[in-house]
Amino acid sequence: MIKTLIVFFSLISSIASAQDYYGVELRERWLLKAEKSKPQLSAEIKKPKAVVKLIEDQNSFQGWKAEKVGAISDFYEKSFKSQSSTVIDFGEHLTGYFTFSIKASQNALHGPLRLKLIFGEVPAELATPFDPYPGTLSRAWLQDEIVTLTELPAKVALSRRMSFRYLKIELLASPSNFDFKISDIQFKSVTSVVNRPDSLSSSASPMIVAIDKVGLSTLKECMQTVYEDGPKRDRRLWTGDLYLEALANAYSFKNHDLTKRCLYLLAGVSKPSGFLYPCVFEAPEPHTQEGGFLFEYSLLYNAALKEYVIATNDKETGLDLWPVAKRQVENISKHLDANGLLNTQRAERDGWWLFVDWREGLEKQASVQGIMIFSIQETLALAKLLGKENEVAYLKELETRMTKAARTLYNKESGLFLSGSAKQVSFASQCWMIISGVASKAEAQSALKAIAIKKDAVKPGTPYLMHYYITALIKCGLNKEAKSVMEDYWGGMVKKGADTFWEAYDPDNEKLSPYNFFPINSYCHAWSCTPVYFIRKYPAIFQK
Amino acid sequence: MIKTLIVFFSLISSIASAQDYYGVELRERWLLKAEKSKPQLSAEIKKPKAVVKLIEDQNSFQGWKAEKVGAISDFYEKSFKSQSSTVIDFGEHLTGYFTFSIKASQNALHGPLRLKLIFGEVPAELATPFDPYPGTLSRAWLQDEIVTLTELPAKVALSRRMSFRYLKIELLASPSNFDFKISDIQFKSVTSVVNRPDSLSSSASPMIVAIDKVGLSTLKECMQTVYEDGPKRDRRLWTGDLYLEALANAYSFKNHDLTKRCLYLLAGVSKPSGFLYPCVFEAPEPHTQEGGFLFEYSLLYNAALKEYVIATNDKETGLDLWPVAKRQVENISKHLDANGLLNTQRAERDGWWLFVDWREGLEKQASVQGIMIFSIQETLALAKLLGKENEVAYLKELETRMTKAARTLYNKESGLFLSGSAKQVSFASQCWMIISGVASKAEAQSALKAIAIKKDAVKPGTPYLMHYYITALIKCGLNKEAKSVMEDYWGGMVKKGADTFWEAYDPDNEKLSPYNFFPINSYCHAWSCTPVYFIRKYPAIFQK
Repeated sequence: MIKTLIVFFSLISSIASAQDYYGVELRERWLLKAEKSKPQLSAEIKKPKAVVKLIEDQNSFQGWKAEKVGAISDFYEKSFKSQSSTVIDFGEHLTGYFTFSIKASQNALHGPLRLKLIFGEVPAELATPFDPYPGTLSRAWLQDEIVTLTELPAKVALSRRMSFRYLKIELLASPSNFDFKISDIQFKSVTSVVNRPDSLSSSASPMIVAIDKVGLSTLKECMQTVYEDGPKRDRRLWTGDLYLEALANAYSFKNHDLTKRCLYLLAGVSKPSGFLYPCVFEAPEPHTQEGGFLFEYSLLYNAALKEYVIATNDKETGLDLWPVAKRQVENISKHLDANGLLNTQRAERDGWWLFVDWREGLEKQASVQGIMIFSIQETLALAKLLGKENEVAYLKELETRMTKAARTLYNKESGLFLSGSAKQVSFASQCWMIISGVASKAEAQSALKAIAIKKDAVKPGTPYLMHYYITALIKCGLNKEAKSVMEDYWGGMVKKGADTFWEAYDPDNEKLSPYNFFPINSYCHAWSCTPVYFIRKYPAIFQK
Repeated sequence: MIKTLIVFFSLISSIASAQDYYGVELRERWLLKAEKSKPQLSAEIKKPKAVVKLIEDQNSFQGWKAEKVGAISDFYEKSFKSQSSTVIDFGEHLTGYFTFSIKASQNALHGPLRLKLIFGEVPAELATPFDPYPGTLSRAWLQDEIVTLTELPAKVALSRRMSFRYLKIELLASPSNFDFKISDIQFKSVTSVVNRPDSLSSSASPMIVAIDKVGLSTLKECMQTVYEDGPKRDRRLWTGDLYLEALANAYSFKNHDLTKRCLYLLAGVSKPSGFLYPCVFEAPEPHTQEGGFLFEYSLLYNAALKEYVIATNDKETGLDLWPVAKRQVENISKHLDANGLLNTQRAERDGWWLFVDWREGLEKQASVQGIMIFSIQETLALAKLLGKENEVAYLKELETRMTKAARTLYNKESGLFLSGSAKQVSFASQCWMIISGVASKAEAQSALKAIAIKKDAVKPGTPYLMHYYITALIKCGLNKEAKSVMEDYWGGMVKKGADTFWEAYDPDNEKLSPYNFFPINSYCHAWSCTPVYFIRKYPAIFQK
């Protein structure tokens, strides 16, 4: 605690020296509040369920399935050498710490023993060689570890936190005339989830029940001492993920302190100018990845804060962080053209990252225009909750002007919103034009109906954008379609054996990866958990 | 301690159930005495000396040399990415535990970092790829470890004990747009050596001084909580190594308790029949490698015990372990033919391992015959020290008969002893026929002179046999030759840059390996340290 405080202090000092928008004292208070809201992780000991074999199968997700071939008790009884490359199935996605026992079964250990442990979230991840590694993210995210043992019997504990369902154990080297047995495989599964969510209505369909269950597992796994984006990979708090996870949490596990902590963390490590970085790392002390500024994520912070205040009625926190929300929207005018339309080129030249979705070639003008308008609306709603309307009264006019500008993106003929000079048609553009209220209800319905059958439309690449697609469908009253899209998309993952929902999922390209190597994808990803929110917020749509 | 005692007890019980020659109580007492003599290791923090580059060079040992290219302070100052595959030189051979600090130097760590650390005793070890591994011992003895870091700054400590002089640090994976610095590299060097040995006479030649220094380093490194055969590889106590190390220790570091501990350990874990296994592992509780019986090593135990009693005058221990010594020589008659000559085929069929030296094709009859006679003589000398002559009086007649039988191996024409039906001429045979007194002084001198120039003689493969070669030279008064052989052989290693003496050394084949891969050889090996003993026991020969 003392160490942390000292580090906070030095962090704050260096920010202060660059003329801090919020001031040292405020940041210090925010980070202390984040620390005070840090959850105790609960731990549960999990045992493996079966020995499985990875089988190539064109009908299975990514071409591989895991088939049960034996009981763990048999695995424990047999000497290991004949069982090298055994794959152990824990039966569910788990995040935490791995231990096992190992003892000699033939002669004493007279030279070191070397094992490789490979943890995977999905079968194909374990069936695909990691090297030579073609991916664009650090190879070290892949969860393979080498253990060298010089004494037996031993209890081995990996210090690295793992996130997985399947574990392959390979023998790399051992002395001759020696064999051994592995036993007592245990996994200490950790999460900051405490409460059980309410059960669904008995009238909910089996598919909805299944989607909800997988969504809850996804959320539970990502809820650690922050909302992590993926417990296997990245493991950091991103504002965009926070917003969606907090929505899902508010309708399920209700661990509102975690949301509070995350809101304070993001505020505490924001830029000296007061604008928010898109992510936070917790250890060894809260810090961010300097340089990156994800514009729309900074705007979504306000929506997250508003939802938190609604869910908790904790206006104290709302007021405490109000200066942050107020500051974020001040960026909105910065790169608008004379009519109030976002100039994406200028924004990107300024170093702003516009994300919207992982989908190559996606044109982002319409989407980000929509997100900006949506953020204005959310900020105004937050101001009203906190009695701060007068401080952001200017936003009303801005909203009107930007909405008017956004209307120029509407193409009456096709009934679709077009983005950028290329006049690109995408799901993303339609969704955000609808969520932001730029489209009328009738326009929204016809746009979403039209896009669904338009062959060259740019489709969503991730469950993240799919969340906003469902939101848009519900917003314009296409409730049946919302349910059907959820059953198709998230249900598609369920049918393909998902234990938790994936970071990226394109039904037509199961090996789609934003990082050029599908095993490095996260298969338990925060932003994919939101069926939990929809199913529970709109029981009439999803539970009947 | 309690755990250890419980394990002792169960070990002892299982031995007892097979009709124990010594009985449970005695073994328990021996193992407790071994535990009580266990040394406290002393630790010293060592810092790296330089950054070096490995350079291929036909004139260097095994074709590689390490050349200084930079200072450690510069290495610490520069970011690591441009310095991947840096080799750090600690300037001396060290055994112990490695730590270093690591911190970001460009952006925050936003994905895990993976490093490979490769520890090597000699330059060529680091310059030779370990995989695909062709060796016959466990690949895991090679000292490469992978470290995955998810948080920075960090202090990394490897739990595995390493033995090395050179360390290569390779970057395996890291996030993009990220760099880091390594600093504060430290090594906690451990040994059970406490005393400083006396200095050599000022008249000793620089080469003898250098050989002595390297011998002392070798011995110091191998002296841990037992006499290890090699701190990098095997790391166990072998009787043959114990004998030589204890001799060297008695003339240098004088840590006699360590010798006592080792004698008790070997006794404690001996076969139910009372015969000794050739080696002991200490952890997690003292145990041996069942099955193996190295006949001549069991006999050399008696020589080691005798030397211990002479060095310490600790007759209590001598008497305590006398039953063990008395038992070992009872094996000698077992596989003698009618004339008293060892039948090696019969012995090997009985599962006895006859070692003598690592040298393919070596015929062992004459050597082991000599070792048996030598052991009888040592046992009789021990009996005399302890007043136990009457208990082994029968050995006198056996010695006479076996010596007479051994005389039949002498070939008058060549002046050499021949071994086995192949009548093989080897250094080993001459040495042991001389040490055992089978050869007269005149025969010994002419045999050693003849073998030195005999082209097809089987030469020594290791410093282990070279020890007995020096012993034989001194025994027959070829003192100048003894010094010259030491200066040629051990001096040859010194000239080739040895920091510690090597397990195997053939001047004509630097990559000779008993295990089919020279990097797995031990380059700090117990049995190679004995110049320390000769130089200090015979100052008139070596220090003038």
